[in-house]
Amino acid sequence: MRTTRWTAAALLLVAAACKPPAETAEQMATRMAAEADSARTAIAAQDRRFEAAMAGGWADSLAALYTEDASMMAPNMAGVTGREGIRAAFAPMMQGGKATLTLNTVSVVANGPMAVERGTYHFTFTPTRGPAQPDSGKYLVHWHKVNGTWLLADDIWNSDAPMMPAGSAKRN
Amino acid sequence: MRTTRWTAAALLLVAAACKPPAETAEQMATRMAAEADSARTAIAAQDRRFEAAMAGGWADSLAALYTEDASMMAPNMAGVTGREGIRAAFAPMMQGGKATLTLNTVSVVANGPMAVERGTYHFTFTPTRGPAQPDSGKYLVHWHKVNGTWLLADDIWNSDAPMMPAGSAKRN
Repeated sequence: MRTTRWTAAALLLVAAACKPPAETAEQMATRMAAEADSARTAIAAQDRRFEAAMAGGWADSLAALYTEDASMMAPNMAGVTGREGIRAAFAPMMQGGKATLTLNTVSVVANGPMAVERGTYHFTFTPTRGPAQPDSGKYLVHWHKVNGTWLLADDIWNSDAPMMPAGSAKRN
Repeated sequence: MRTTRWTAAALLLVAAACKPPAETAEQMATRMAAEADSARTAIAAQDRRFEAAMAGGWADSLAALYTEDASMMAPNMAGVTGREGIRAAFAPMMQGGKATLTLNTVSVVANGPMAVERGTYHFTFTPTRGPAQPDSGKYLVHWHKVNGTWLLADDIWNSDAPMMPAGSAKRN
């Protein structure tokens, strides 16, 4: 009888202790802050690889930083989906001149395999023939951790430069 | 002695059963898919409120859909941070004409209090005096669940329309 009673007590104790692990809001905030710190370091390293691939004109290396089914949303053209489409979108630009990109991370939020990075960029494209075209703006990237590596899953940016009002071009 | 032994057994059992709740990759994928479904419904409702606030010209209602420290990154201007700054950025446009916005969600990914929505938009601004200015493009929103309500934490979009090449304006 004593054994049975203790078995029952043990099972009750296990059941009570092993309820779904209800993470408190505070615990979640603490965990997510730690994950954001860790993701920020890893994402900064990926950003440096992105800049290096851009400077080198390596469309393959650039595309390899995106997930297989990533979405790349450049201004003034339709969005592009998939790593191969992204490579094909970057390649012609890279063949037409030299691109220099600087990414500046402003914030990273992370939870498990998902992270969101917000930042600002400076970009200069210097065509093979023609003057440098500098631009500054902002970006938002949804990163996804795939087999331990953070990859761009969604990438979008836009320019801070005011639109040229219609009819403002030189008229001489 | 028997009691002591059973107590030890019970404690061991609790310890074994209550190891950190290691969610398998498969369990996480299943949970996140369910959370994305649920978030997608709630975010669609918020998108309808966003469209209604835009159509009504209600900058306050629009700003209230953002988190207190949200970031709104419109094309061709610097990013704006904070709900009041966002309200102040929308208000002048809304006073200068009628805006009509349609949001089309393409994908939602969620994990706990964080979600990322990718979509396409159609936007028409009709100034009080002047022709309608239609635009189509794409957007990425980082949503954050605050006290049970999904709010925009980061909002960025850009146009699909090709840039007007410099000097292309009418010269007559």
